[in-house]
Amino acid sequence: MNRRPTAETHPRREREDGRRSRSAILDTAARVATVEGLDGLSIGGLAERIGMSKSGVYAHFKSKEELQLATIDRAGEIFAAEVVAPARARPGGRARAWALADAFLAHLQRGVFPGGCFFAAVAGEFDTHPGRVKDAIMAFQDGWGREMEVAVAEAQARGELPESPDAAQVVFEVNALLLMGHSSFTMYGDPALLEAARRGLERVLGPRPA
Amino acid sequence: MNRRPTAETHPRREREDGRRSRSAILDTAARVATVEGLDGLSIGGLAERIGMSKSGVYAHFKSKEELQLATIDRAGEIFAAEVVAPARARPGGRARAWALADAFLAHLQRGVFPGGCFFAAVAGEFDTHPGRVKDAIMAFQDGWGREMEVAVAEAQARGELPESPDAAQVVFEVNALLLMGHSSFTMYGDPALLEAARRGLERVLGPRPA
Repeated sequence: MNRRPTAETHPRREREDGRRSRSAILDTAARVATVEGLDGLSIGGLAERIGMSKSGVYAHFKSKEELQLATIDRAGEIFAAEVVAPARARPGGRARAWALADAFLAHLQRGVFPGGCFFAAVAGEFDTHPGRVKDAIMAFQDGWGREMEVAVAEAQARGELPESPDAAQVVFEVNALLLMGHSSFTMYGDPALLEAARRGLERVLGPRPA
Repeated sequence: MNRRPTAETHPRREREDGRRSRSAILDTAARVATVEGLDGLSIGGLAERIGMSKSGVYAHFKSKEELQLATIDRAGEIFAAEVVAPARARPGGRARAWALADAFLAHLQRGVFPGGCFFAAVAGEFDTHPGRVKDAIMAFQDGWGREMEVAVAEAQARGELPESPDAAQVVFEVNALLLMGHSSFTMYGDPALLEAARRGLERVLGPRPA
């Protein structure tokens, strides 16, 4: 090849390298946070895990809070790709509500994050700590709740689910079973617990569409 | 009074003082752990909170793990007194299952622990950390599950609840709603979320007995 670097290609490659290393740091941080907590993330610890210098990691994040917020953003992207996007490929209404719930349980079973649901794990850590990190976690939870509520309300409008209880109550009960699936499967590791969540969902959402 | 201390009364009083200070340390530790985590407990931090010397606290616990295990024991005693004992005063079967669930939600609403359910909070912290602390948390959860399962099985034997789904599945669904009550109420502080848990329980346990 022997292509000589020019004044133009160098900075472009550096920017690209920078994006890649930032992405590698955050992928690791999102996984680690479900085991050690968002508060257990340290710039030194992450540098060691991914074989980067501490100053290299530090260059990407000005503070621990910036690192935590960027980790939450990255976890939200992973969740969107692993859970929400596949479910959105399904038709709306009851089939969509079931697809969302199933995709959530499947991402637990696949071990996308070692500590189960990223957002359930960090919500338990930050629920009593008001601030930007808690706000970001609540914003994600609100988004998930709306996604599920749209599907349930559509199911009700089509007559696929009874009008009562209202959609917000149905979403509360669906999320209760998903949270219990996360909590018990992470604690005990038994897939029968995910099956128990699915059986509970049949009581709330009716039988799973074929 | 002017009673002179004797060789006998002195050690007795010291033992009594020792029990009282241990109890004060653990009451504080159980509350703090639901906000800062069991791993956030430190002998120095606890000493400062209760106005005791660091060596005074250290004298009671040989290691951080001993402190964590003793804190779990104390939280279990508080939970037994605040939740289980009042429910056991109710008749068995469906009334008992409802009484246990109601007492659980009431202890959240009263703020017995500032971070909601002690055991839900610390389970989320230790679920991915095998060891004596996780074992102690699982032992508590197993005990609670059995308490609820006995009540549900009795309700089924009496015909107060259908035979299917089986008692273990009903307990999974009841605990899902209680966990969601803990998680959402601790995050958002809105008592309507505890009411949503109660409405969900009616679907699982039938209407609340008068």
